[in-house]
Amino acid sequence: MTQWLYNFGGGTAEGSAAMRDLLGGKGANLAEMAVLGLPVPPGFTVSTELCAAYYSDGKKFPESLSAQVESGIKHIEAVASAKFGDPDNPLLVSVRSGSRASMPGMMDTVLNLGLNDDTAAGLAKRTGDARFAYDSYRRFIQMYGDVVLGVGHHEFEDLLERAKEGLGIQLDTEMSADDWRGLIEQYKVLVQARLKAPFPQDVSEQLWGAMRAVFDSWMNDRAVTYRRLYDIPESWGTAVNIQAMVFGNMGEDCATGVAFTRNPSSGDNQIYGEYLINAQGEDVVAGIRTPQSLVANSDDGAGEPALETAMPKIFAELGGISRRLEGHYRDMQDIEFTVQKGKLWMLQTRSGKRTAAAALKIATDMVAEGVLNEAAAVARIEPEALEQMLHPRLDPGAPRNILAHGLPASPGAAAGQVVFSSERAEDLAAKGEAVILVRPETSPEDIHGMHAAEAVLTSRGGMTSHAAVVARGMGRPCITGALDVRIDLAAKKFTVGDTTIVEGDIITIDGTRGEVLAGKIPTIEPEMTGAFATLMGWADKIRRLKVRANAETPADAATARKFGAEGIGLCRTEHMFFDEMRIVVMREMILADDEVGRRTALAKLLPMQRQDFVELFRIMAGLPVTIRLLDPPLHEFLPHGEAEIRDVAKAAGVKYEAVASRVALLRENNPMLGHRGCRLGISHPEIYEMQARAIFEAAIEVEKAEGGEAVELEIMIPLVMGGKELRILKDLVDSVAAEIADAHGKAPEYSVGTMIELPRAALRAGDIAKTAAFFSFGTNDLTQTALGISRDDAASFMESYVRQGMFAQDPFTSLDQEGVGELIETACRRGRESSPDLKLGICGEHGGDPASIHFFEKCGLNYVSCSPYRIPIARLAAAQAKLRQSKQ
Amino acid sequence: MTQWLYNFGGGTAEGSAAMRDLLGGKGANLAEMAVLGLPVPPGFTVSTELCAAYYSDGKKFPESLSAQVESGIKHIEAVASAKFGDPDNPLLVSVRSGSRASMPGMMDTVLNLGLNDDTAAGLAKRTGDARFAYDSYRRFIQMYGDVVLGVGHHEFEDLLERAKEGLGIQLDTEMSADDWRGLIEQYKVLVQARLKAPFPQDVSEQLWGAMRAVFDSWMNDRAVTYRRLYDIPESWGTAVNIQAMVFGNMGEDCATGVAFTRNPSSGDNQIYGEYLINAQGEDVVAGIRTPQSLVANSDDGAGEPALETAMPKIFAELGGISRRLEGHYRDMQDIEFTVQKGKLWMLQTRSGKRTAAAALKIATDMVAEGVLNEAAAVARIEPEALEQMLHPRLDPGAPRNILAHGLPASPGAAAGQVVFSSERAEDLAAKGEAVILVRPETSPEDIHGMHAAEAVLTSRGGMTSHAAVVARGMGRPCITGALDVRIDLAAKKFTVGDTTIVEGDIITIDGTRGEVLAGKIPTIEPEMTGAFATLMGWADKIRRLKVRANAETPADAATARKFGAEGIGLCRTEHMFFDEMRIVVMREMILADDEVGRRTALAKLLPMQRQDFVELFRIMAGLPVTIRLLDPPLHEFLPHGEAEIRDVAKAAGVKYEAVASRVALLRENNPMLGHRGCRLGISHPEIYEMQARAIFEAAIEVEKAEGGEAVELEIMIPLVMGGKELRILKDLVDSVAAEIADAHGKAPEYSVGTMIELPRAALRAGDIAKTAAFFSFGTNDLTQTALGISRDDAASFMESYVRQGMFAQDPFTSLDQEGVGELIETACRRGRESSPDLKLGICGEHGGDPASIHFFEKCGLNYVSCSPYRIPIARLAAAQAKLRQSKQ
Repeated sequence: MTQWLYNFGGGTAEGSAAMRDLLGGKGANLAEMAVLGLPVPPGFTVSTELCAAYYSDGKKFPESLSAQVESGIKHIEAVASAKFGDPDNPLLVSVRSGSRASMPGMMDTVLNLGLNDDTAAGLAKRTGDARFAYDSYRRFIQMYGDVVLGVGHHEFEDLLERAKEGLGIQLDTEMSADDWRGLIEQYKVLVQARLKAPFPQDVSEQLWGAMRAVFDSWMNDRAVTYRRLYDIPESWGTAVNIQAMVFGNMGEDCATGVAFTRNPSSGDNQIYGEYLINAQGEDVVAGIRTPQSLVANSDDGAGEPALETAMPKIFAELGGISRRLEGHYRDMQDIEFTVQKGKLWMLQTRSGKRTAAAALKIATDMVAEGVLNEAAAVARIEPEALEQMLHPRLDPGAPRNILAHGLPASPGAAAGQVVFSSERAEDLAAKGEAVILVRPETSPEDIHGMHAAEAVLTSRGGMTSHAAVVARGMGRPCITGALDVRIDLAAKKFTVGDTTIVEGDIITIDGTRGEVLAGKIPTIEPEMTGAFATLMGWADKIRRLKVRANAETPADAATARKFGAEGIGLCRTEHMFFDEMRIVVMREMILADDEVGRRTALAKLLPMQRQDFVELFRIMAGLPVTIRLLDPPLHEFLPHGEAEIRDVAKAAGVKYEAVASRVALLRENNPMLGHRGCRLGISHPEIYEMQARAIFEAAIEVEKAEGGEAVELEIMIPLVMGGKELRILKDLVDSVAAEIADAHGKAPEYSVGTMIELPRAALRAGDIAKTAAFFSFGTNDLTQTALGISRDDAASFMESYVRQGMFAQDPFTSLDQEGVGELIETACRRGRESSPDLKLGICGEHGGDPASIHFFEKCGLNYVSCSPYRIPIARLAAAQAKLRQSKQ
Repeated sequence: MTQWLYNFGGGTAEGSAAMRDLLGGKGANLAEMAVLGLPVPPGFTVSTELCAAYYSDGKKFPESLSAQVESGIKHIEAVASAKFGDPDNPLLVSVRSGSRASMPGMMDTVLNLGLNDDTAAGLAKRTGDARFAYDSYRRFIQMYGDVVLGVGHHEFEDLLERAKEGLGIQLDTEMSADDWRGLIEQYKVLVQARLKAPFPQDVSEQLWGAMRAVFDSWMNDRAVTYRRLYDIPESWGTAVNIQAMVFGNMGEDCATGVAFTRNPSSGDNQIYGEYLINAQGEDVVAGIRTPQSLVANSDDGAGEPALETAMPKIFAELGGISRRLEGHYRDMQDIEFTVQKGKLWMLQTRSGKRTAAAALKIATDMVAEGVLNEAAAVARIEPEALEQMLHPRLDPGAPRNILAHGLPASPGAAAGQVVFSSERAEDLAAKGEAVILVRPETSPEDIHGMHAAEAVLTSRGGMTSHAAVVARGMGRPCITGALDVRIDLAAKKFTVGDTTIVEGDIITIDGTRGEVLAGKIPTIEPEMTGAFATLMGWADKIRRLKVRANAETPADAATARKFGAEGIGLCRTEHMFFDEMRIVVMREMILADDEVGRRTALAKLLPMQRQDFVELFRIMAGLPVTIRLLDPPLHEFLPHGEAEIRDVAKAAGVKYEAVASRVALLRENNPMLGHRGCRLGISHPEIYEMQARAIFEAAIEVEKAEGGEAVELEIMIPLVMGGKELRILKDLVDSVAAEIADAHGKAPEYSVGTMIELPRAALRAGDIAKTAAFFSFGTNDLTQTALGISRDDAASFMESYVRQGMFAQDPFTSLDQEGVGELIETACRRGRESSPDLKLGICGEHGGDPASIHFFEKCGLNYVSCSPYRIPIARLAAAQAKLRQSKQ
């Protein structure tokens, strides 16, 4: 019979940290801590296998489960010395989700389960604290009512508010045991009214209901969205942890808190965290009360004392456990603990989320401490996380109009229009507007809006509030607990002192300092030093794949070099024609009646294009530069719409009809599959001739200059279908080179290669490689053609395709390895068979995607090329790919 | 040393018919005839290998050639007992091209070579016929001047015309020896003026010049065009035949003519042909004089007598040779002969071009005669040629307003606008207009125009004139020698009696009867009987591939069954929605705001679609019918342009803006790669649900009817990328079937399969085949995506791509076997590995293309599906593919 349950607690456990897939992260680590002898309340974990069985069997539990649950409860009862449902000595349990990957707040939790009218009375008697017992009971009804029974959370809150009004009191703490008892009766009436059934008094019924609710929450909208954002497969499922309750809210000798073994924002090697006296864990995470620091010397001055001061023995014990757990896991840990009547209990440990800066500092520190080697440190950093380090920060010299201070919950800086709802954030972001999401606090429903926003500001909550944790994970700058910011959601405005900011006003968030600033503050480029530089150095030693940039402007090329680009993998020459002045000449060329007219216009473009290349070659001196000849269809350069056509006609001195008819003639039904790329080069050889000439002349000019160093010139022909097109166009380039050699004594060194971006080209790679010095996979177009999906038109169905499992991820973001990947593998194999020295690279969007880079390492490509800001990510991902590849 | 030359004549030869690749068709058959002991003037053939060497070496002859040519001339001199360049006994030779495939009139020829001032005088003396000698000399100067020296043919003709005017005579035959001599002096002056050099008097120089000209003509525009039209590779090259001249123009005991061993139009087993007394071969072919029949009892009443009457002995000898050659080659021969002073000489034999009807009759007759077996007869027929038999002929009951009679040069009937130039024919045809090309006579320059025209009418020329031969080859109806038709090219009109037809007027050509008719005459369907039925029966016995039709209308389905379709391979359900009434409901569906609105509209479409299927299923009773669910993007059904949108908005009772914004929303950048096919089925399941329901309900209705026979239902999902989409949509179809079974007791038998029309689908075939009962290759879309070419936008470059050798043929006409073909092979292999019983078919345009069908046979597909009119072609091609496959 399948073992669905795994017990832990009492100094032992059936599971371990290695069983994460089966027990989920929380369950595996609870087991591990129990084995380590740490104080873990006893419990058991229902495995993720059960989740799979539950869903595959139409949401039914297997028959064999109930006996196992019964024996699991007996195990808890034995260790905890209490009895489930026994009014004299009631056992209360928590029921929590726990999947393989952390999904904070996405799924449901039920606490204080096991309370009913009888056990609540028993608890009151046994603890001698009726107020605590009935507060716990009302919390349980409220939570269970919301999560399991589907009665709205706000309906319970409304009753509570009205009860307090009736009693003339402000705070929950002012409620007496009898007040709670009265409220409990109202809660039960509410449940009866909504469900046409009483609130369940049978503790076993409570337990099964909660388990079912947790498993069901795996498929709720929030969880589905989160998994999509973080690429967590649906098939993983969640485990459920049922564990004896401990209470941080039984008095002033009780507390609950969250600790990080190192600082998750800076990476400093010091325990860091927050706690609340006399509270339950949800109070910390929900951000309703602003919690206090663990460490005495921290910045948060006001209010209650730090744990170090208030409970020095507990603080010392926690510090010891913290070091022990970090040493055991060789990674920074995020710990949840509760102090019940002066005794410390560990409720969770997991690898802690951290900013990219902290991740780098922790990894490099751990190498210095001898805990990790360089490769392990490199493997540890999530490449995508680097992105937050690579973007501009605020210019420290710029004047700052500080509106308010808050907690520096997630570093980085961003400016944008203020919005007060996630919906509005999404709407404006979809239009390309930069927005700052401002909320009193955030909840899992805001995941979408936070993703859409440039930065997040909340007036409540601490460094471990929902907003803070999620923003750090997403790399969004975030300030929490900005108490001076008074938000009026209905009026769509906030005030700070006598300043009012309305929706649409621009503010800047400095998440590193915790400053809310008026207007848009200028930014400066990040510096790539310290731990970043150290770790990137290790990555560079490890990786085999070279990393180049897709860039054509001097600014982008300079950024690329700064980020460590080892050349340019894609210079899109057409981008050089969209300049306002040049497009006029470009249009003159396109509108010309014949080759003579085209050549006249091209002669004007030649010096402009040459100058572009001169600048580019100077910046990339000594490195390879791959220049793609004109690729898009000519009509992309033509005006659209009557007014624009009229302007162009006037400027060109031709009739409106002439331009209009030319535009109509060049219009294509499917421009993606039209007269473009090398097809243009073959029908209009004079264009490619001009471009080749500009390249060669620029290279000569740069080499001739004092101290001039040559680049490694690679001329790239786009969109070939087979070898013949490349042969024709290589001949053309070669003949221009011969003319250059005649005129200048010698032509620069160069090679001619091609994009592989059509399925047929991938299949015909053997023939193409006879002529090509290199292949560069254009994975954007290869994805479009192999899948028959226009990237521009995919929005209407792609999201639903990913959701329904047609792809693990949007294939334009992460390579479709099964389809497009096979074409790439085939092309690599055939190309190299035909020409062993063939250079292989990739220059589509996927060149900066870590998962895709792993695939390219496997294919044995020579380099990847990506946008300048993705280069460090690609360098790191390439090193990790090499490490993983070496293991296999 | 390479042997470049192969001698023949004098009862022996170095070559044979088997050496066609090396010697070209003409050279190989001259050698074969020489070996057979037939009277062939001696000569030698310069091989096609030399042509290749000539072009690969920058148009230079190898050094070793001159000695071989010298020895070849010696061979001719020895057999002909004359000496090249000897004034006392001059040897004259012809220099003719001859490639592997017949390319009539495409390349250059020089006759009477070896004449100069001295040998002309010698020839006059030796033959005692000064007029003949100088006529020959002036013909030579004219031909050599035109072909080798590049002096315009018309310049010589002008001098001749002026000379005749000056002498007051009408006909060439009235010119005396002295008149010719005077003209020769003028010709020499003309050459000197144009070339700044005298006409070459050195016979060896003449020979080398002519050889060079013939090799050069391999690359002239006419030849290049012809090769493209007939898929002849450029690499084949041409041979050159140098042969002793014989003369049909030395008097009334001389003649020249062309014979077919059987009637090339009807296939009747009787020698058939034309000849001219006292003429050179070019006079017959050029169509300037209307020649006489060979056989006495033929229809052409007027003028000179038939060869049978005029030269009975020669006629008998020719008949004997004709039977001998046909028996030897086991095929109908096209023979050229010359009678010089009462002696018959054979100048050429080759497989004769023939109409499709003649081809079928000859092939079936030869089986009856025991010359061929059935397989050889099936292999003999060019499948494409059948097309001319499959199209409508004139309704015999329709009133005919006969304008003129001419020779029935190529059968079939067609109507169209009269045009008088090939350029105009091409222009209008490109716009989709049907045109009839009317010319006094045609020349190789008209190939394009004839291809563009529906039919051809010439006022001059015979059954073997250029127009007649080419039109038969192309399957275009053609009338030649319509002498009453007086054409005024300048005024763009022709008159017959007092009727005037101007450009743009509609006429009908009945090429079978030779009748020119006013206006457009109604047509009737062809009958598939006689030799056609016999041969198709043999083909059906041989072939393995099934042949189905792409059809959705009852009319098309009926035509398909008549032509032998074994089912429907592609029923495009969307075609059923374009009906004027239905598109209104379709638009209502698309414009609906939600699923409820869509379902309301779909409920209206259901009975219409069901009724379509009922009709189709009745016609195809007992056969498989593959129904493709909705494929095109929804916006194809929406109105375009303001006026149309306004109409639709009014009809639908919604605002203009609502419709306009919906149209704008659905507009796609690349609709080919957009939201269509199964992507629609997944996002709008209610559409496919309705279609599945209509199919099932129709099948039940047909089966329930008295004598109702079920069809084999195959439901086809378009545009899948992988297995998941198919699984989702098969579940949907299955669930509709389950509902139908609930409602009707049982659901009809059916299977669900998919189109393979995206490269990724071909690669993922193994996974897809786990769910699919069948694959149908959609080679149109598979070609578009694999090659990255939008068929609609390819016109601007495809022609030049084919011309430059990127493809042997337009890949939308004949399958790109190297690229798309590999994807098909891969999909077949993976699909069958995963599911051995998988049914495989193809339903793109290529299903009716013989070359592609050979490929599909090799892949082991189960069936091809094509348009109804291509079905007999596909049946025959499938049989030939099977024969060829069995050989290998």
